[in-house]
Order: sequence, then C-alpha cells, then structure tokens
Amino acid sequence: MFEKLKQAVCDANIELQRQRLVIYSWGNVSGINRKKGIVAIKPSGVRYDELTPDKIVLLDLQGKIVEGNLKPSSDTPTHLELYRNFKSIGGVCHTHSTYATIWAQACMEIPCFGTTAADYFYGEIPVTEPMAKEEIEQDYELNTGKAIVKRFKTIKPMHMPAVLVANHGPFTWGKNPDAAVESAVILEQVAMMALGTVTINPNSNQIDNVLLDKHYLRKHGKNAYYGQK
Amino acid sequence: MFEKLKQAVCDANIELQRQRLVIYSWGNVSGINRKKGIVAIKPSGVRYDELTPDKIVLLDLQGKIVEGNLKPSSDTPTHLELYRNFKSIGGVCHTHSTYATIWAQACMEIPCFGTTAADYFYGEIPVTEPMAKEEIEQDYELNTGKAIVKRFKTIKPMHMPAVLVANHGPFTWGKNPDAAVESAVILEQVAMMALGTVTINPNSNQIDNVLLDKHYLRKHGKNAYYGQK
Amino acid sequence: MFEKLKQAVCDANIELQRQRLVIYSWGNVSGINRKKGIVAIKPSGVRYDELTPDKIVLLDLQGKIVEGNLKPSSDTPTHLELYRNFKSIGGVCHTHSTYATIWAQACMEIPCFGTTAADYFYGEIPVTEPMAKEEIEQDYELNTGKAIVKRFKTIKPMHMPAVLVANHGPFTWGKNPDAAVESAVILEQVAMMALGTVTINPNSNQIDNVLLDKHYLRKHGKNAYYGQK
Amino acid sequence: MFEKLKQAVCDANIELQRQRLVIYSWGNVSGINRKKGIVAIKPSGVRYDELTPDKIVLLDLQGKIVEGNLKPSSDTPTHLELYRNFKSIGGVCHTHSTYATIWAQACMEIPCFGTTAADYFYGEIPVTEPMAKEEIEQDYELNTGKAIVKRFKTIKPMHMPAVLVANHGPFTWGKNPDAAVESAVILEQVAMMALGTVTINPNSNQIDNVLLDKHYLRKHGKNAYYGQK
Repeated sequence: MFEKLKQAVCDANIELQRQRLVIYSWGNVSGINRKKGIVAIKPSGVRYDELTPDKIVLLDLQGKIVEGNLKPSSDTPTHLELYRNFKSIGGVCHTHSTYATIWAQACMEIPCFGTTAADYFYGEIPVTEPMAKEEIEQDYELNTGKAIVKRFKTIKPMHMPAVLVANHGPFTWGKNPDAAVESAVILEQVAMMALGTVTINPNSNQIDNVLLDKHYLRKHGKNAYYGQK
Repeated sequence: MFEKLKQAVCDANIELQRQRLVIYSWGNVSGINRKKGIVAIKPSGVRYDELTPDKIVLLDLQGKIVEGNLKPSSDTPTHLELYRNFKSIGGVCHTHSTYATIWAQACMEIPCFGTTAADYFYGEIPVTEPMAKEEIEQDYELNTGKAIVKRFKTIKPMHMPAVLVANHGPFTWGKNPDAAVESAVILEQVAMMALGTVTINPNSNQIDNVLLDKHYLRKHGKNAYYGQK
Repeated sequence: MFEKLKQAVCDANIELQRQRLVIYSWGNVSGINRKKGIVAIKPSGVRYDELTPDKIVLLDLQGKIVEGNLKPSSDTPTHLELYRNFKSIGGVCHTHSTYATIWAQACMEIPCFGTTAADYFYGEIPVTEPMAKEEIEQDYELNTGKAIVKRFKTIKPMHMPAVLVANHGPFTWGKNPDAAVESAVILEQVAMMALGTVTINPNSNQIDNVLLDKHYLRKHGKNAYYGQK
Repeated sequence: MFEKLKQAVCDANIELQRQRLVIYSWGNVSGINRKKGIVAIKPSGVRYDELTPDKIVLLDLQGKIVEGNLKPSSDTPTHLELYRNFKSIGGVCHTHSTYATIWAQACMEIPCFGTTAADYFYGEIPVTEPMAKEEIEQDYELNTGKAIVKRFKTIKPMHMPAVLVANHGPFTWGKNPDAAVESAVILEQVAMMALGTVTINPNSNQIDNVLLDKHYLRKHGKNAYYGQK
C-alpha cells in the first residue's frame, strides 16, 4: 500500500549521498502520505548503499511504528513535529552538509546575497534559538522540532523550505521527499556562495526586496513564468 | 537548416554540466547564425541530461519564436540584447557558477591579479550597476541585457568576454557557443584564484599593464604566438 | 595466523586513498592483536595501489619485526607508543589530510562548534606541545608518540579518538583499523567545517556541555540510542 | 633514439590533467637527455587528450628544433634557461594550479608551516621579483627563466624543486619529468594547506629549523631512512 512512498523515501535518501551532502549515515529523508497520516523514514544508522525500500520504517504522526523491523532515524521526532505543524509539506530532509552546517555552527542566518538564493528561498535562511538545558536533556529531538516551529511563527514553510538548527545543521523540506532533498542541495550551494561573499566583502548587502520578489515570484506562485508550465 | 547550430547549442549546454558550472537547470547557452539573424537557445527549466537538439528553440533577434515546441530560457531577452549590441559575438552563456557568482554577489569587479586572467580577459572583470526598481519590475531580463551593454560602453566585448551582473551571476560570450562556455570555465577559475589572492593578501595589486598586454596579446590579435596557428 | 589482521590493515590503508585523505604514500594505518601483542602496519613509502596483505609488516610491541620483507612505516615507533599506552585502542591511523593538517600547522585545537563533532569527539580536538630540539633529533617518531601520550594525561583515548601533532598532522585511532580510518574521515570533515565557522564568525563559541553530552552519549556508552543496537 | 624520453614527457603531461593541475592546455612538462643535450617538450596549445609521443617536440639547449612538426610550448625558453643553469635537474613542469597560483598572484612566498612541506621543500617556497618593463616586452619567456635563476642564486635547485613566478604561477622540477610533476602536485597541496593555515591564524610561524632538517633529511640525502631503499 505504501510501496510507492517507501520507494520515494529510499530513493531520496540515496540521492543525499549521490549529491555528496552526507558521509557515512549522516542524514535522513522522510515522506508523508497526508491522507493516511503515515510517515516513511530512513532507519537509524544504516548506510545509504545498504538501503532498500523494505528497510524504510512507517510510523503514524504520533510516532507509533506501523511497519518495519528496524529502529527509525533518531531524528524522527523532529520530522514528525514538522509534519504536524507545517501542513503544506510532504517531505523532510536532514543533513550535516558542509557549508550549511558551517553557518549553523556560527549561529548566523544566511543572508540573501543574490538571485541564486532568491529563486528558492524567500529571504534569509533562519537559524533557531539555542535550546535550553532541559529541552536538550529531555525529548531532545522533539524539542529540536519545536525550536524550528517556533522560529517559523511568522514565516511560511513553503516560502522558506530550510532552517539552520543552531550548533547543529540544516533541516529542509518540500512538497515531497525529492523536493526536500533538492532544497538541501540548493541550500548547500547558497551557503557556500554566502561564505565566499562575506570573505571578499564583509559588508555585502542583502539584495533589494524588489529583486527578491522578482526572482522568487518568477519561479513560484500564480504569476511564475520560469520552466515549461 | 539550422541543425548544426542547434547541435552546437545543445552540446554547449551539456558541457556546462560536465564542467560542473551548473546544477539542476541553472544555466543556458545560446548561439547565433548572423547571416540569417536566427538565435538558438536552451528551453526553460529543462535539465541537461534530457536535452536534445530538437528541444533547442529558434528565435529571431526580436524574440519571435521561429521553431520549437518549448518555451525558450527565461533569460532569452538578455541574450538577444547582447546579440543586438555586440555584433562580434556568436555565442552567449549564463551560469550561477560558484566563484563568479560570489564576486557578483559582493558587487565587486574581479581584479586582474595574474597572467591566468590576462591570457583571456583584457583587464578586470566588470560588474554591472544595480538595476532600478522599475527596471526590475518591468522587462527584467531585457533590462539585465541593457545594464550589461551600458557597462560595456567603453569596453570591447571580444576583449572582455565576461561580465558579472550585480547580485546575480556571470554572463560570458565568445565567437560561438563553445567559446562562450570556455569563457565561463575560465572565468570561474579566475574568480576562485582571485578569492584566494585577497584572502592571503587583501592589498594584492593588479598586474602591470605591460604584463597584461604581453599575455593578452600573446594569445590574441595579429601578433599572437601561442598555439599552432 | 595473522592473515585476518593483515587483510584488515591492508584494506584500511587502501580506504585512506579512497576517502581522499592521502596522496602518494602519505599516510599509514596499523592494527593490533592484543592477545598476541602483535602489530600489523603498512610498509614505508609503498603506494596504496601496490599494497597487498603480504606486504604488511608484523612487529611486536617493542618494535621487533616478526614477519615481512619490507621496512615498516617510518612512523611505526609512534604507533607502538600509542598501543603501549592506550590499552583500549585496536587501530591507529596517520594522515596529512588537508584540513586537519591546517589546524595542526596553525598549532590550534579544533573547537567543538557543533553536534557533528560532538557525535564523535568528546570535546575539542587536542594539539600536542611543540617538541624540544633533542626530542626531534633523537628518536623523533618515538617522541612524537610520547608527546601525544603526555597530552592525553587527563583525556580518555576512546572519548577522543584524534589528536593533532603540532606543525605536523593528525593521528587517529579506534577499536580496530577500520574505526581508526573512520575517525580520520570524520576529523577531516570536522576540521573543514571549523575552518569555515571561524571564517564567518571569529567569535563563534563552542557548544554547550549539555549539548555535547547529549550528542556524544546518544552514540556512545550504555545509554546510546543511535543506530540499530 | 629519443622514444623513451618522448614517451616519458608525453605521460608526464597527461598526468598533469589526471592530477587536476591543469584545465584546457594550461601547463607543460619537459624532460632532458643530458648526455645528448636534447630537451623534449609539449607542443603549444595542444590539449592533453590529443597528446601522443610523436607530437612531442625535440630541441637542443639553444632552442633549435631537432625533431617535430609542431611549435613547442611558448614557455620553452623558460624551460631551457632552467636546464642550462640547474645542471642537476632532468624535468621541468609549469602549471597554473589553483593554490600555487594564488600565492604567486599575492606575490608571497609560501611559508614552511609543517612537515608536509618540509618532507619535500627545504624551506619556504620562493617567489621571483617582478620583471621590468623591458624584460617583459622583449624575450619575455627567456627572462622569466632568468628571473627564476636569479632568485636561486643562494638556493640549491634540488633542495627546493619549486618556484612561484610573481603574478604568474609555479614552475617545478625534479630528476625527471615524472618527478617534476610530483613536485607540482605536492606544491599545490602545500599551497592549499598554507592558505588555510593563515586563514585560521595569520600569525602562524614557520616550523623550527630542527624539525625542517629532521623531515627533509629523513627523505633526502645520505642519511635518509624513509621508504624501502
């Protein structure tokens, strides 16, 4: 019944490695069937070249395992919190990709320095607040999700399909698992360019709102005119 | 009739990916048949591994589609403006390659720090002026072309086959589509080296005009003595 | 008798090259059979694509060659000193991997800037004291080992499977040769990210001890809950 | 008669590309038969994948072509000047490899920050003086060689098989064409690490002379003990 979802989640996880966003088992992608309320996610600690659709774990939105013999990713409670709160998303991705993690470690938002970012991210990439002692010690992964949701109080998730968890790394999302990985690839590229930009010119400015609107809306929304549709 | 042109444009677009100047569909190359006044360009949003010559779009210099079922690249008006104004060029290329884009995002010209640059670019790589609100909101891609043409008022396009569009990324050109891509590859290399140069020594100087002349003219013009011709 | 050990050491050395941690013959991995007190190590100056298990050299813990026609790695006395003092380790790895070596050359410890590091290294990566003139001139490689052991007086080797030898490069270790190489791969990634972090924000702080504990202990020790065991 | 030399020079040139030290035709390697006084060098502007031994050009030490239908590398006068003055060398290599060129463009010597450099280069990598107007305009490539030779007045070429030509890029050498390329590969690695080192710590010091001696002499000279000989 969920074969297609499991295949899509398996493929998206393998794509993480192909795109060089992960080494070893450092990353995970999930997908959701909204109608059934079922989430499919990578098993914990399994390497990408050993991953097959039958190893993908199925859970309901409260975290109860519905199918699968392996433990789900230890980051599962973060994914579930995102699905519960961001109703428009269909896939979630977590990596420790080099440049996005660098910005997360510096606890700094990635400014929108150019149209490359503006084509996908409607503004600067947000970073979460550091978590409190008790949020770390108890239900850490759930609280990571809560920190993200809190940071998005005034941001629309589908306008900003990425966040940096402070001192940790990026989570990204999209309409499906594939799109979540695409967000992660583009975030990494944007993060790399932003590092270079501040290296050359520490006083670089974010792009003008007019240019941001132009590029973002050229690709998204009802007046989009990029691509074949 | 334009089969050869379409093949050349298709090949040059695929070369962008092979040279790692683009990810997804972030870039486009065009070529022109000057006698017929026909431009061939990549379709919008199509990925490089799905590109075949029959998908290449043909237009006249005013932008009227002459052949092709797909929408041309959204950057087409920029390409056409360059062809209309730079009579000596035969191919145009646009990418968001990492290091060239970094300099474009910093809104800084790339100084001519060494003979690697001087072999191809006769001076520092120019950056356009930021565009005005109304230039962005209306006919944005055409105005991008106009901003480039304006910046080249006193520069010969074939002496400087590259420009950085402020807050955006590079456009390059050459005598044909292949040469436009070669300019993009070399620009990326030059941009990377220039970033390293200012990192080590922020007070690095541009090379002397005598050395610039020596290297540029060793490869270009009637007294060139590099290569087999 | 030691065929399995020699195979594991050979494979781990070849993995160094596959992981792009070494060029030419710049690196070596060893493993130990603790019951027999026998160490297997790469021969000196042999390239990885010419390496076969029968070329691996066997020595006792005092450095007496037990089997093998080739000279062992010139770094052998360092490896042996580590095995003699760090009773819990089963494999040792030495490379000149780019980013770890950069920190070693800067004679700076790598701060624990994020959870990527905290998952594997329980705190900042230590750097040894510079060696004295006489320690360099006589028994240099043995004294390199002693400098490491001295630096670890108050650090548990299995909590911190990596060290930077000042002005030189990293040594890493683990429960077996494979794990020693894995430590080297992760150290390199952590070192690269740390360089980027201080580039963006020179005042970046190390992560909180609560977060360090959470991540390190999530993967290590009796309460670990990452992975399938 | 010179088939072996031509093959070695051809292979060494192709190795430049395999090692990613060059793009397009940016680099050249030569070799010399000292007994006959014959130099073999890459033809000018030919790409590496089209290179075959029969295209290699043979010249005497005064630059007279002895065999070959193609024009020799435009850098040939530099190579010949090095062979005439550095009697101990058997191969010369020129590239625009990224990190070595960055230091050359910054007109800064590469400090000896660690044992990675000390294993191959006996001290800091020298940079030439900028050339005078008339040296550039007339016999430029010959004068490039003279600038290198002048810089080496008090340096033994076989102790320091590399130089940075100011605002240009590296020349390296060795006992044969292969060794000249190996010097270029290692120089690139050393240059990359040195850039990272000054990025982290601009006050990084060169290594102590005792450590320099230890590492350099561990691999070179009559008391060397690295490798199998």
